[in-house]
Amino acid sequence: MRDIPGEDPWGPGAISTAEWTGVSLAEVLRTARPRQGASHVAFSAPDISADADPPQPFGGSVPLRKALAGEVLLAWIMNGQPLPPVHGGPVRVVVPGYIGARSIKWIEQITVQDHPSDNYFQATAYRLLPADADLRTAGPGAGLSLSSVAVNADILRPCDGAALAPGRADVTGYAVAGDDRGIARVDVSTDGGQTWHQADLGEDAGPWAWRHWHTVINVPPGRTEIIARAWDTAAAVQPESPAQLWNPKGYANNSWARVHVTAR
Amino acid sequence: MRDIPGEDPWGPGAISTAEWTGVSLAEVLRTARPRQGASHVAFSAPDISADADPPQPFGGSVPLRKALAGEVLLAWIMNGQPLPPVHGGPVRVVVPGYIGARSIKWIEQITVQDHPSDNYFQATAYRLLPADADLRTAGPGAGLSLSSVAVNADILRPCDGAALAPGRADVTGYAVAGDDRGIARVDVSTDGGQTWHQADLGEDAGPWAWRHWHTVINVPPGRTEIIARAWDTAAAVQPESPAQLWNPKGYANNSWARVHVTAR
Repeated sequence: MRDIPGEDPWGPGAISTAEWTGVSLAEVLRTARPRQGASHVAFSAPDISADADPPQPFGGSVPLRKALAGEVLLAWIMNGQPLPPVHGGPVRVVVPGYIGARSIKWIEQITVQDHPSDNYFQATAYRLLPADADLRTAGPGAGLSLSSVAVNADILRPCDGAALAPGRADVTGYAVAGDDRGIARVDVSTDGGQTWHQADLGEDAGPWAWRHWHTVINVPPGRTEIIARAWDTAAAVQPESPAQLWNPKGYANNSWARVHVTAR
Repeated sequence: MRDIPGEDPWGPGAISTAEWTGVSLAEVLRTARPRQGASHVAFSAPDISADADPPQPFGGSVPLRKALAGEVLLAWIMNGQPLPPVHGGPVRVVVPGYIGARSIKWIEQITVQDHPSDNYFQATAYRLLPADADLRTAGPGAGLSLSSVAVNADILRPCDGAALAPGRADVTGYAVAGDDRGIARVDVSTDGGQTWHQADLGEDAGPWAWRHWHTVINVPPGRTEIIARAWDTAAAVQPESPAQLWNPKGYANNSWARVHVTAR
């Protein structure tokens, strides 16, 4: 394990679900009537980032198909309150099911075009490189541009490293699925994946919201590894090994969630 | 490994890509103007199946969202020829990106409704059950109804068990992604997944068609396991172990593709 170059140390906390109010981008685009050949919708913001090479405003794009699907919003209300500047107010893009970098804050311009954005934060940053790629030489267009996300889950309670009493223990977490897939099942194991039992799923708030889950396990004295994995409605399941997902920027690790607890 | 109860012994050959001509179901539904609350589109065929319990015509449904997305067809031409009865002529449904069982042949009736089909082949068959489910007692609604499919790939050449000359060998295969995801990368390994190199991807015929790939490996004398795995555009990769995907009906195994060859 090592730090990810140029990224903050994100943990399982870097995710949330909010209720957004705004106008569907699809409605706006129907008014604009995209030309034949239009295939992507690009957004730009006014904030110039010194981290970009060369320094430039933050920007990115989504495929026109996604932009027309109805769920992409130009939003000005979050959880019933006017959108504060720190969250992108007065108006931001919300692209459900995609990486957060496409939900551009303080939106200034929308361009319908025949190619993906060549903004630094799409063409160079936020790309999944192969394990053997060299970060010093990987230029624009290398690897896969992150967009929609694969099925993932994490354990919220107990915390990693927690000391528990032996016996019954509540385990809670969340699971998310990309695109318009839903969460079909969450499995929990305390024997390294030899056997699994199904967690109870909480309220289904729709395909782009997280789904909470809960189960009760029996914790023996000593050290126990608690593992969770989610299945989406396309029967895709999280892969087992983070080693097989390793990439130079540390992105898109959707391997099984694991916490270790000790009971005595 | 064991036979799958009630299923033919499908191998990597049970897949193809064809060019379909028909009318978009979305256009038909716009004429029909589905009522508020409509959420699924059900199809039925005239052929009564004795395998169903109780015996009933073949049927199934897709979510209204999928039916309205544009790509679902009522098709009467396949690869430029009138659709032959064996492939569902005169008219069949084609649901790109979904399991074949939803592309219902000899379509007789289309119903817009507020719930998924309760036809045997959707409510009971073609469901992903948990590993510990009992096939004798698993009733309608158990497990996950298979619909869109997860990223998958297979190796076409060399054949499993092939005898080769040591040295350079061509490896070819296909990869597919569900929903409107595409294939982003295919990796090939000859050392059990310790290291991978990228295959060259063939023509991209769109999100629902297979994508051929090709690479050249070096085969040492003796026995070699060739492994392939595909990544989709949501950065989802095929999981490693078929054991972790085991389920009583043997469905949805999208673990790494493996063939064994011997060189001498």
